[in-house]
Amino acid sequence: MTPTLQLAFDLIRRRSITPEDAGCMDLMTQRLEKIGFQMTKLRRGDTDNFWAVRNGASQGPLLAFAGHTDVVPTGPEENWSYPPFTPEIRDGFLYGRGAADMKGSLAAMVVACEEFIAANPNHSGRIAFLITSDEEGPATNGTVKVVEWLEEQGEKIDCCIVGEPSSSDRVGDVIKNGRRGSLGLELKILGIQGHVAYPHLAENPIHTLAPALSALAAEEWDQGNQSFPATSFQVSNINGGTGATNVIPGEVEVLCNWRFSTELTAGDLETRARAILDKHNLRYQANFKLSGLPFLTAEGPLVQATQQAILRITGEKTELSTAGGTSDGRFIAPTGAQVVELGPVNATIHKVDERVKADHLDLLKDIYREVLGELLT
Amino acid sequence: MTPTLQLAFDLIRRRSITPEDAGCMDLMTQRLEKIGFQMTKLRRGDTDNFWAVRNGASQGPLLAFAGHTDVVPTGPEENWSYPPFTPEIRDGFLYGRGAADMKGSLAAMVVACEEFIAANPNHSGRIAFLITSDEEGPATNGTVKVVEWLEEQGEKIDCCIVGEPSSSDRVGDVIKNGRRGSLGLELKILGIQGHVAYPHLAENPIHTLAPALSALAAEEWDQGNQSFPATSFQVSNINGGTGATNVIPGEVEVLCNWRFSTELTAGDLETRARAILDKHNLRYQANFKLSGLPFLTAEGPLVQATQQAILRITGEKTELSTAGGTSDGRFIAPTGAQVVELGPVNATIHKVDERVKADHLDLLKDIYREVLGELLT
Ligand SMILES: [Zn+2]
Ligand SMILES: [Zn+2]
Repeated sequence: MTPTLQLAFDLIRRRSITPEDAGCMDLMTQRLEKIGFQMTKLRRGDTDNFWAVRNGASQGPLLAFAGHTDVVPTGPEENWSYPPFTPEIRDGFLYGRGAADMKGSLAAMVVACEEFIAANPNHSGRIAFLITSDEEGPATNGTVKVVEWLEEQGEKIDCCIVGEPSSSDRVGDVIKNGRRGSLGLELKILGIQGHVAYPHLAENPIHTLAPALSALAAEEWDQGNQSFPATSFQVSNINGGTGATNVIPGEVEVLCNWRFSTELTAGDLETRARAILDKHNLRYQANFKLSGLPFLTAEGPLVQATQQAILRITGEKTELSTAGGTSDGRFIAPTGAQVVELGPVNATIHKVDERVKADHLDLLKDIYREVLGELLT
Repeated sequence: MTPTLQLAFDLIRRRSITPEDAGCMDLMTQRLEKIGFQMTKLRRGDTDNFWAVRNGASQGPLLAFAGHTDVVPTGPEENWSYPPFTPEIRDGFLYGRGAADMKGSLAAMVVACEEFIAANPNHSGRIAFLITSDEEGPATNGTVKVVEWLEEQGEKIDCCIVGEPSSSDRVGDVIKNGRRGSLGLELKILGIQGHVAYPHLAENPIHTLAPALSALAAEEWDQGNQSFPATSFQVSNINGGTGATNVIPGEVEVLCNWRFSTELTAGDLETRARAILDKHNLRYQANFKLSGLPFLTAEGPLVQATQQAILRITGEKTELSTAGGTSDGRFIAPTGAQVVELGPVNATIHKVDERVKADHLDLLKDIYREVLGELLT
């Protein structure tokens, strides 16, 4: 077994269900200290985080690897072909919770640094790790807190590789160079409760909501742009009613979410949503919550270095994408860092029988090492 | 205190929260047996019912008083001005759970019969009581079961006075000579669950539902007719979503109800609702449940006798109405009986501080007695 797979095994064995770290960070920091990293542990609330940095021999950029040791719950373990915390290679696939998201990436990062530093002990610039155990949970005591601490220290990341599983079919076929913004809306429509037999004495908020909801769902918010797909609106939850079948409810609650491009702002969305609601003569309370601004790392040294490294190792002409969910990149990009996400194939993440092609992890390790070479030698 | 008020007090003191009878029927049957009624107790499931009948001296119609001894729960008793099961007369009002719905009516019926029989021991026709302790609950073991039993006996009610509180401001100002039908719909809209960041891989059932729900809520089902208000449609409950704000739900459930006139049938409503849903290209499951057919007692001997009795006792020119919720009349009318509902003012029923004007109960007793006189002498 290769050192990358061996470390991935050791990480998967640790039941680090979010926000638990379960000793994963110790494994990583022991290895990193051996090759000259200085560690800072940053426990915040229930969350373990660390920042590790290795100074090079000469001036150069600060390149950080970012990632998380926590994993999502497994669901009933009997639904898995192999126990989720007992890593297993079958038919060329490494099975286990976190194999793809993202303990495989963490192992590849550590081994990539070991190989790079062995070959380039006097590299330029600095290499860092920004690791949290709260990415899959509320993400309130994780990367966002480390970024705050870095700002207090006057420390600034130039380039950041987030190990999220970005690939679609083959390792490196897709990297994420940005993400859409995310805006939430808690909407409460107010009516007047009453008996279904006396509708003239009541005001049914579900009835008044329906046409407004139709309009919100049908709205074209923008058409996206070269880097971003069109902004999309989705209702995630709707709840109204007392349970009784003869009572007109007094209110109905709706939770909505936009994933939005750089073509408009959260403020634009709020203004337009309120205009639609107002047009329908609703009595409502609307609470908008911005959970992430869109960010984009346009072409530049990091994107270029990553594309070249992938081409050299896999022959793949990588595709840039901003699709998909949010990631901790949303906290790092606003500091001015270039951010790309590069990790293994994401087909099985958060699912039963999460797995990754075993040889993909060493390809990923090689790509990470080549990026270090591009930027720090 | 009058005999009517005394009996109302004695009934209210019994905590007959549905489906409990708590001894109310014993109070009534003791009084009725004394004046020549023959009793049949008809316990069904958890529910006490009785049928009592007094044969007259000559041929004539069978006139039944129908009602219930159960009451709705009180809610927190500390919200009441007086304990709900300790009847109290204050400022001319009798306070207590059931004062208006419908222990006051039960007392008035019994005393009306006592007075009528004392004056007319050889009345024509027959007088009956059809009393249940499950009207406020599911109503599955109550009046519907007694009606089944009557049919088995070959017994047929000609005229029925249901003691439900029909009055609006003054006793007898409104009687109900029919009720709208009630049709329920359990609707499940099917979509495809997914992540809000990948809406193209999901199908949001709340989005597909919204325009269909708009159309259902805006539909004019009919315009009613001389006896019935227009058919009305109301959504009572809507629920969809996993609670998570980043998940597009796989389905959404909606509970709806029609109160419908005699201008259309439950089948018509189902056909038209399905046409609206089909037009909106929904994948759905629809479960229609008929809980009551509309019924109407047009002008005839019972309505006429009731109107004359009210006019004589109160000077009131009574209004015929079919508005409001369903009542046990829906089980009795289909047997071919003429049915009217006549009881006290309904302003406080099912509420805290349920109350009725104390002198209204004796007016009601007098009206009931006059109806007996109209029809059985
Ligand atoms: Zn992840
Ligand atoms: Zn009632």
